[in-house]
Amino acid sequence: MPRYRMTVEYDGTSYVGWQRQDNGASVQGSLEEAVHGLTQESVTIRGAGRTDSGVHALGQVTHLDLMRNWSEFQLLNAINAHLRMAGHGIAVVDVKQVSDDFDARFSAIKRHYLYRIINRRGHLALEKKRAWWVPKPLNHERMHEAAQRLIGHHDFTTFRSVHCQANSPMRTLDRLDVSRNGDVIEIRASAQSFLHNQIRSFAGTLKLAGEGKVSADDVEGMLEARDRKACGPVAPPDGLFFLQVDYPGD
Amino acid sequence: MPRYRMTVEYDGTSYVGWQRQDNGASVQGSLEEAVHGLTQESVTIRGAGRTDSGVHALGQVTHLDLMRNWSEFQLLNAINAHLRMAGHGIAVVDVKQVSDDFDARFSAIKRHYLYRIINRRGHLALEKKRAWWVPKPLNHERMHEAAQRLIGHHDFTTFRSVHCQANSPMRTLDRLDVSRNGDVIEIRASAQSFLHNQIRSFAGTLKLAGEGKVSADDVEGMLEARDRKACGPVAPPDGLFFLQVDYPGD
Repeated sequence: MPRYRMTVEYDGTSYVGWQRQDNGASVQGSLEEAVHGLTQESVTIRGAGRTDSGVHALGQVTHLDLMRNWSEFQLLNAINAHLRMAGHGIAVVDVKQVSDDFDARFSAIKRHYLYRIINRRGHLALEKKRAWWVPKPLNHERMHEAAQRLIGHHDFTTFRSVHCQANSPMRTLDRLDVSRNGDVIEIRASAQSFLHNQIRSFAGTLKLAGEGKVSADDVEGMLEARDRKACGPVAPPDGLFFLQVDYPGD
Repeated sequence: MPRYRMTVEYDGTSYVGWQRQDNGASVQGSLEEAVHGLTQESVTIRGAGRTDSGVHALGQVTHLDLMRNWSEFQLLNAINAHLRMAGHGIAVVDVKQVSDDFDARFSAIKRHYLYRIINRRGHLALEKKRAWWVPKPLNHERMHEAAQRLIGHHDFTTFRSVHCQANSPMRTLDRLDVSRNGDVIEIRASAQSFLHNQIRSFAGTLKLAGEGKVSADDVEGMLEARDRKACGPVAPPDGLFFLQVDYPGD
C-alpha cells in the first residue's frame, strides 16, 4: 500500500483537538471522513502532534496508507474538495508519497511551535481566537531572559499537564525565543518533542515574567521545583500554532 | 465639545460595510450604538474611508464629538467594553483628543491599504475570509511590473465602480507594490484618496498579469481606455485591509 505524507493547516477553534474523541469533531476524524468520502476506505491518519482544542496548525504533518496509487496533486485536490464540501476549517497544503518507514510521529526530529500574544489596551477584532489578548504592558526582554533558563535537557514536570501521558518528564528544549513586533509578542519554541501543555505552560509563566511578577531566577526555580503547582497559569489555546515538523533528509 | 480621533480595527466579514445602511449592521452604526450605550448621546462618527462589506481594517481613523471630557484611556476602555458586550468584531485601538479642525476624512493626507492573496493549491483554513485564495501559480514580478504602469496622476475610470460617487475619476496613485513571501502575495497601495472599488479593481487586474493573461503594456492600455469594461474582474473584499491614514503633524 502506498504511504502518503500530508501537511495540514487548520483553525483549531471548532474542534475538540487533533485526536478523535467522543465529545465532538476532531481534526483527525474529519480528515479520516474526507478520505473515506473519497476512497471508501476506513483509514487511520497519524499526526506528528496531538494539538488540544483551540490550538491551530499551519504545518501539522500526518501520514496515511491507501489501497490505490494517487498522484500527489490529485490526492491533495480530492481530499480538499471533500473537506470544503463538509465546511471544515481544515486544508491539506502538501502531499508527498513516502516510503513505508516514514512515520509522521516517530520519524520527527524536530517540532516547531509559535505562541502569539497581542499586547495592547484594545481587545482583538481581526485576531480574535488567533492570539492571546494581554492588555497590561509586557516587557518582552524580561520574558526572553527568563525563557533562556528553560533551554536544555531538563525534567519539565512543572510545565506539563497532570493529564500528560508521556512516560518521562525529561525533554530537551532547543529554542524558546521571545520577540516583539509592535503589539505582537511571539514565542517560538523548538524541540524534538513536547509534553502535554508544555508550551502553553511556558507562555503563561513567561507572561508573569513580562509583567515583572517573577524574575528569570524565579522561573529557573519553578523548573527546578519539578512540581506542577509551581507553574504559572496555563495560557489559552488561541495563541498556539503548530508550525512545522522536521524529518531526516528534508 | 471635545473632539476625539479614534483608530479602529474590525473584521469586515459580518458587516454591510463601514457606512450605516438599512440592510444590516454597519461598523459606523455599531460604533455609534456603543457610544450611545456609554454616554446616551446620539453621535455621528465620521470615518477616513468607506470600506465595503467584507473589507477589514487595522487602522480606520474616525472622529467624534462628545459633550463631556473623557480621558483618552477611559474613553478607549469604555467604548471597547460596550463593543465587547454587544459581541462585535470591532475594537478601538487608539484614542486621542484633537482640535476642532481635525476631520478624519478631509484632513487625511495619505491612505494605506493592503490586499492579500494566498497563492497555493490548498484552500484557506486559518486565513479564510482574510485573503483571496488563488490556486493557480501567479508570477508576482509580472504583477509588480504591471502595477508600476498605474502609478501617478491619472483618470482611473477603468478602475472605479460604476456606483462610485466621487465627482472626478482623477486620482494620484503614490504606491502600488507587489511582493511575495512564501504563499502570500501582498499588494500595498498608497494615495491621498481612492475611488470606490479601485484597489479591488487593481487586484483583479494584476491577478490577470500574474497569470500571464495580460502584459504590463495591456494594463497600461486598460488605464488609457478610461472604460470600466476594460477592467479585469473585481477581486473579492476578503483580501483587503485598510491599514493606516496619515495626517499633517503625525
